[in-house]
Formats: sequence, structure tokens, C-alpha cells
Amino acid sequence: MAEPDSAQRVYQGRVLGVTVERWGEATREIIERADAVAILAVDRAGRVVLVRQPREAVRRHLVELPAGVADAGEDPLATAKRELAEETGLHGGRWRAGPSFFSTPGYSRERVHLFVAEELDEGDPNPDDGEEIEVLRWTPGEVEARLGEIEDSKTLIGLLLHLHEHA
Amino acid sequence: MAEPDSAQRVYQGRVLGVTVERWGEATREIIERADAVAILAVDRAGRVVLVRQPREAVRRHLVELPAGVADAGEDPLATAKRELAEETGLHGGRWRAGPSFFSTPGYSRERVHLFVAEELDEGDPNPDDGEEIEVLRWTPGEVEARLGEIEDSKTLIGLLLHLHEHA
Repeated sequence: MAEPDSAQRVYQGRVLGVTVERWGEATREIIERADAVAILAVDRAGRVVLVRQPREAVRRHLVELPAGVADAGEDPLATAKRELAEETGLHGGRWRAGPSFFSTPGYSRERVHLFVAEELDEGDPNPDDGEEIEVLRWTPGEVEARLGEIEDSKTLIGLLLHLHEHA
Repeated sequence: MAEPDSAQRVYQGRVLGVTVERWGEATREIIERADAVAILAVDRAGRVVLVRQPREAVRRHLVELPAGVADAGEDPLATAKRELAEETGLHGGRWRAGPSFFSTPGYSRERVHLFVAEELDEGDPNPDDGEEIEVLRWTPGEVEARLGEIEDSKTLIGLLLHLHEHA
């Protein structure tokens, strides 16, 4: 695809910005934000490891895959290993890349890199100051039965992928 | 969950805005945008109906579920029926609600309402001026084989759900 006729950063905040691009007759307002990672982590008992945390934007606590944003210059796999260890204590194990996708390609460039981690070693979480995270572990049967409780897009993708791969 | 200590709209564009909320020591930058709908449409031959369209924000054409944003006061099911007919010509049929999820709950309030539509009647598309949409139809075997081509979050959810329900 070509490049826009013009592009102007109209807002720049702490972690996100907005760019307005003109493409011929069309105008696009686009969110700029660092790419993210999410981890479908399966413990040695075959349970999927999830986190429950407050999401102020939507005024509720959500159950999600462990996830985070890369530090400057950090590659996605390194980010994923760091975030999983910080949020759940799980480390080591066997890792592979899952799907990589745009969260909302109509108006954002953000990509989410999903990783699958298995045969993990247990450890102590080390959340960032102020992070209020509860770690959950769901058996395959619970994933199937409780899928309807999930309200986060990347988590639906991870859990549906897990059910699909183990169908 | 409580309400923020303060909230300030720091940017307002044509289709999206940014609000900064303070929650105690934490600051949250939050995207404001209308909720969206997406449709997992299955034609009478059992094929999933997809659209391929340019996504300027990510500089590529993407294969996605038919989708759109509600007009003012329109309810999500009505939006979904209107968007499916405009983009693909498909209408009538049997509809049910699928999952409803937040696209990126860490920094946006946007919710996506997924609907499943079956036994649809064929018709002529009527895209908005300037919409450049190619309609695709994938058999169940193609959905399975080509899942790796999908780079859009709501479409991964819809197709994985379809595979899961027909496993």
C-alpha cells in the first residue's frame, strides 16, 4: 500500500498518541502505541495461567492472559518472558510464537504478539509497584466452561486457540 | 469499580477522542470511540463470508469479518444487519449474539459485539462511497488452512469460534 498524502501528530500523551493522515479524499485518525505481547502459559498440570486485574478504562476487573508492552529496544519474546515472570512467577519452559495480530486495524497500528509457553518452572511473582494482580489457573474443562466470562479480545484468541489445538 | 478522581478530555477528533483519568497515584490515557459490531456470517453452502479491504493505519489490505460502527441510537443487532447487507449483500437469515468483548481494555472503552448469522439470503452489496471491499467466501477447510493469514483480532475470534463450534 502507498503512503498517505500527509500525516500530522495531533496529540501526544505519555503512552499513546494520535496521528491524522490524509489519503486522497479520506481522513484517518490513528492511535500510536507500542506493540504488546500476550502469553498463553500452560503449567505442568495442564492448566492455563490467567491474571485478574482492574481495568480502569472499562470500570471493571477482567480475567486476561498475562500481557505487557515492550521496554525500549526489547524484542517481543524477551518482553513476554519478563512479563510472565513478573506477573505470575513462571519462568523457563518451552516457548513458541503464536499468531501476531492488529488489535483494531481500522484506527490503530498496535500489534499484539501472542506466545505459547509450556513446561514452565514455578517461582514468585514480582509485579510492578501499584499492579494489583490475582493469578488464576484454569483446567481445560474450566476454560471450556468459563469462556463466556472472558471480555478481552487477546484472551479470547488465546483460549480459543488452546481449545482448538487440544480439540 | 469506583470512579476516577478526575477525568479530562485532552483530544477530540472526528471519530475518536482521548481522556486522561487520575486514579489515586495512577494516570490512565483512554481512547473514546463508538462501540463496534462484527459478523460471523455463514452462507447456505456453509462458507464463512469475509471481506478484504485496505487498512491505511497498518499499510496493508486485511481479510476480516464484516464489521462496522453503530449510527447514533442504533442498537448493535440492527448495526450488524445493516453492515452485513451493505458490505456483502447478505440479508435475512437467522441471527444470534456471540461474545461481546473489549478490543483493548488497558486503554480503550471500545466494545465489539460479535453476531453469528446463518441461512442468509443473497443480494447485492451497497458499500459506502469510497469503500473498497472484496467479498471472500471460505469453506470450513479453508478457514482451518488459512487461519495463519488472519491479522485482525476480531476475525481471529470469529473464525476460532466457528472452528470450535464445528469441531
